Amino acid sequence: MKNNDSLSRENKPSIVVIGGGTGTYTVLFGLKKLNKDLTAIVTMMDSGGSSGRLRDEFGVLPPGDIRQSLVALSGDASILRKLFDYRYVKGESLQGHSFGNLFLTALADITGGMDKAIIEASKVLNIKGKVLPVTTDQAHLLAKYENGLEVKGEGNIDEPKHDGKLRIKELILEPKPKAYPQALEAIEKADFIVLGPGDLYTSIIPNLLVPGVAAAICKASAKKVYIVNLMTKYGQTFGFKASDHVGTLEKYLGESCIDYVLINNTLLPEDILKRYKEEYDYPVADDLKDDSYKIIRTDLLAKDPIRKAEGDVLKRSLIRHDSHKLAETIMKLV
Amino acid sequence: MKNNDSLSRENKPSIVVIGGGTGTYTVLFGLKKLNKDLTAIVTMMDSGGSSGRLRDEFGVLPPGDIRQSLVALSGDASILRKLFDYRYVKGESLQGHSFGNLFLTALADITGGMDKAIIEASKVLNIKGKVLPVTTDQAHLLAKYENGLEVKGEGNIDEPKHDGKLRIKELILEPKPKAYPQALEAIEKADFIVLGPGDLYTSIIPNLLVPGVAAAICKASAKKVYIVNLMTKYGQTFGFKASDHVGTLEKYLGESCIDYVLINNTLLPEDILKRYKEEYDYPVADDLKDDSYKIIRTDLLAKDPIRKAEGDVLKRSLIRHDSHKLAETIMKLV
Repeated sequence: MKNNDSLSRENKPSIVVIGGGTGTYTVLFGLKKLNKDLTAIVTMMDSGGSSGRLRDEFGVLPPGDIRQSLVALSGDASILRKLFDYRYVKGESLQGHSFGNLFLTALADITGGMDKAIIEASKVLNIKGKVLPVTTDQAHLLAKYENGLEVKGEGNIDEPKHDGKLRIKELILEPKPKAYPQALEAIEKADFIVLGPGDLYTSIIPNLLVPGVAAAICKASAKKVYIVNLMTKYGQTFGFKASDHVGTLEKYLGESCIDYVLINNTLLPEDILKRYKEEYDYPVADDLKDDSYKIIRTDLLAKDPIRKAEGDVLKRSLIRHDSHKLAETIMKLV
Repeated sequence: MKNNDSLSRENKPSIVVIGGGTGTYTVLFGLKKLNKDLTAIVTMMDSGGSSGRLRDEFGVLPPGDIRQSLVALSGDASILRKLFDYRYVKGESLQGHSFGNLFLTALADITGGMDKAIIEASKVLNIKGKVLPVTTDQAHLLAKYENGLEVKGEGNIDEPKHDGKLRIKELILEPKPKAYPQALEAIEKADFIVLGPGDLYTSIIPNLLVPGVAAAICKASAKKVYIVNLMTKYGQTFGFKASDHVGTLEKYLGESCIDYVLINNTLLPEDILKRYKEEYDYPVADDLKDDSYKIIRTDLLAKDPIRKAEGDVLKRSLIRHDSHKLAETIMKLV
């Protein structure tokens, strides 16, 4: 018995999803249909693309990961949800900007901060659950590679100009930000914590670098599940097997902290793999052996081909997890 | 008896306000508190500032005048109303852009047109009444001055680079746009049509240049009122007396078409007039004599000093009509 309302929560477990980006979007989108008590805790270290430009020019916290989670949890098919997800494809000054990012930037200026902007945007979008920034302080990622190279900024790590086969020896945050108190509180009260899928070094681990967050996760009574990526990512996880993913995560999170590892066990489509290979991205090999965690091998693959959205200037995965399969699998563990 | 529901409309007259810009905002903002059946018909010829940039870069219809009318009629004090009126003050790419303009531009792209965007934005903003574009075709103003000079584009007429004392001999639209059918319909069904206040050549007359609109107004059984500007405007109405305003309006609208002319009869503040004088703007002298229209002289002046909004890059009037006084005076005529 963790607290007084554990009974009600047995029927409606409190699930916290930690990450940012498309992987977290996929998990949240699936879970919102099955579970009402949902919280997304989202990295605030983005420095590339539309978010990076707004961060540089406005001094605002990067809105992109927040936006994706808000859209995922948005309750209805309203025009605002579509707008939030809209990207300008024309216009010298606007091309590449996401409307939702501009929305959050203006709202942060009006309300006096990104945390308040998120609360107001959550109301306007009628979201199911909560989206919380992992921190409301400005911080940048710094990656130290095995050859001594140091690269600063999420955008430069995500789209590397250096040899993408290099391994990251250490990832740190500069300066050290303060964890957002509500995020720590949500972790503490959670029945279930989901990490991944998503870019290991730019979407998942950045959250764990915020002082207090990794410790709070490991200490929490919640069951912790990690969802292994389908593909390796050149510049971040080139050559990584499943055990490398879990091992790297636990390096930053804490040993023996994960309870379940979810991994897809269906074949990936050959024709699309060829296209990935051109960019040195490969399927993550499943070399997992039972450890302190339980391994769950099941079909998690989205079968429908994924199309690029118009105006989507970032490279997006064509092989993705299926929202509903992920959510169903997670709910069986709860 | 104009039609079957004239009785119900006697209690709730249908008022159509024609214009664009700050003057129309002021009238609408006052009227929405007193009358429920309100329609704004708005010029679509803006080519300066944020609207002009979006028009050039996106090929979208200029959203600025629409935005102002939507904000005026917005039903509540929601965060969306504030956002719609927000202007970015920082950011290389965004500075000077109005958020509402970016909202309408994205929405026009999603919905397939500015007319549909206006309908969706009206719902989101919970507006009282309707906002209609005078046309959904692209057209630009062309001003022919008394010395033979021709200037194209609303922005260039509004902020002239030529001698601002020059009088406009003729204002035309290129190419000729088609009137928005719902706008013509609203005019036909109106009990009351309000023109002005506002920049004569860039906010009011542009509506009358759209084929069919001036004729529809004059033919309509509605009472027509024109509200005379408080100040002349260098580059447009330098040296204009009240009779010049009415005369110019009737040149484009049709002779003996106006039923009432409203004009302020209280003194304007001396200290602020000095600041206007520096830009060659002067109070509009009341030289009106009873004509085919009835003249209503009364206090219409806003007493509270008007502050510039942060991020307001346009020159805005410090001497303005009072929303409530305008609305009260109009409602007495109805």
